Amino acid sequence: MNPLDDKKEMSRRDMLVNGGKIAAATAIATMGVLQAVKKSDAYENSGAASYKYVKLNPQDVAQSTYENYFKRWCTSSVIAGFAENLQKKGAAGWNNFPIDAYRWAHGGFAGWGALCGTMPGAGIIIGLVTKDTDVAEAMTNDLAFYYSYTELPNFTPAQVLKAPIKHMTIAGTPVCHISVGKWMRAEGAAFLSNERQERCARLAANVAAEATTMLNAYMDGAYKPKNKPLYNVLANGITSQNNCSDCHGQNPPAPMQTYDSLDK
Amino acid sequence: MNPLDDKKEMSRRDMLVNGGKIAAATAIATMGVLQAVKKSDAYENSGAASYKYVKLNPQDVAQSTYENYFKRWCTSSVIAGFAENLQKKGAAGWNNFPIDAYRWAHGGFAGWGALCGTMPGAGIIIGLVTKDTDVAEAMTNDLAFYYSYTELPNFTPAQVLKAPIKHMTIAGTPVCHISVGKWMRAEGAAFLSNERQERCARLAANVAAEATTMLNAYMDGAYKPKNKPLYNVLANGITSQNNCSDCHGQNPPAPMQTYDSLDK
Repeated sequence: MNPLDDKKEMSRRDMLVNGGKIAAATAIATMGVLQAVKKSDAYENSGAASYKYVKLNPQDVAQSTYENYFKRWCTSSVIAGFAENLQKKGAAGWNNFPIDAYRWAHGGFAGWGALCGTMPGAGIIIGLVTKDTDVAEAMTNDLAFYYSYTELPNFTPAQVLKAPIKHMTIAGTPVCHISVGKWMRAEGAAFLSNERQERCARLAANVAAEATTMLNAYMDGAYKPKNKPLYNVLANGITSQNNCSDCHGQNPPAPMQTYDSLDK
Repeated sequence: MNPLDDKKEMSRRDMLVNGGKIAAATAIATMGVLQAVKKSDAYENSGAASYKYVKLNPQDVAQSTYENYFKRWCTSSVIAGFAENLQKKGAAGWNNFPIDAYRWAHGGFAGWGALCGTMPGAGIIIGLVTKDTDVAEAMTNDLAFYYSYTELPNFTPAQVLKAPIKHMTIAGTPVCHISVGKWMRAEGAAFLSNERQERCARLAANVAAEATTMLNAYMDGAYKPKNKPLYNVLANGITSQNNCSDCHGQNPPAPMQTYDSLDK
């Protein structure tokens, strides 16, 4: 399975997301590019032999994640949400799983505000239980689209543990600093406030639930990627998001289209 | 060990990095903030019982990482660099380690350009072999400083496997898109070029070598954090980098300093 082999028409959603870049994306989706990407083919994942997944209730995983957030922060709370529920169901590999070994990914890497830590938390579970790397690539890509273009957090906890909050926001990006900054501005809450912690706990719960839904579908043989993996790289000529103007204003750099060196 | 308890004067390097934010950082470093951060205390990491580290030659880990890059991309190549060398030394826990289960972290999360995948690759090793989460927090924070403020890549491979390259750049950030974009502009190379792959392979080698040096010091009981963990959060009032003007121009938003809700 290599999703880049699929050269179907882009979906209407792709077009909405990427606006004026369609022409550029089409121009660069040449055989040369596809071959270059294919040089790094999917690997079978040896972890899937050790870490078993069984279908879980997304709401249960979300609630466990929410409760864990206040002692473990974003990444490890998502991992704990899965590990606790997989343990309860007797799935192999999750007893004594080193949940807190990944805590450093919180706050966009030790608080540096880069990648929101909820997604690598889910990615670690996805990567360990799926059988080849292209499936994990597609699921994490779908997760980034979900995170970036959904009004979040919309998870409702069984009981509010930290503080009531009023706002949901659309991040437009998987980047922690931008995502939490937009929410802080909407809510009028500081980073080191109970409200912000509540928001990130609920957001972690949403990401955990979304990943659970994908993995449940995968167990049924019914998981289909909603979005084309590596689409952003092909569309923009660089690893990227689709909120170019947030940083670049109205004049983002044009994609570099000199791929001659691929033939070397 | 909680590095946030250490309220020593900031170093000259901190001042250089953060420029005019010193006053704000000092103002918000109140007991309230420190208590809030301390609510999530260090956990003992159960992984350290299973995954053993023995001191390695940083150049050996770097070379293995470099060689793995061209089939595994950034994150898994750093993991492979450690796993292969730890296997050779007979360290427990690394036979059949699921190296490729983490490949989705490449290119800033499945190509989304957020956190450079070399650092979570090193973080996964650091998190699994260190005994408490505060050590991993300090090391990954130091790694982000190294990555952001060193002219890279300066690793020299035993043999050039993809293409000669001419430039090193200072990323100023752990963000993949900005880091690789600055290098691409300096080199005049497209993302899907042999030169860019060579650059990222050497960069992965550098990050692996730096993490090896830290872990070797840790094994000797001699690892000391070079930078204050969570400094960026305290200085800027949000998870963040220190290159504010790259996106915000000359007028970055002022840190929000209303921490009343911490007392709720």
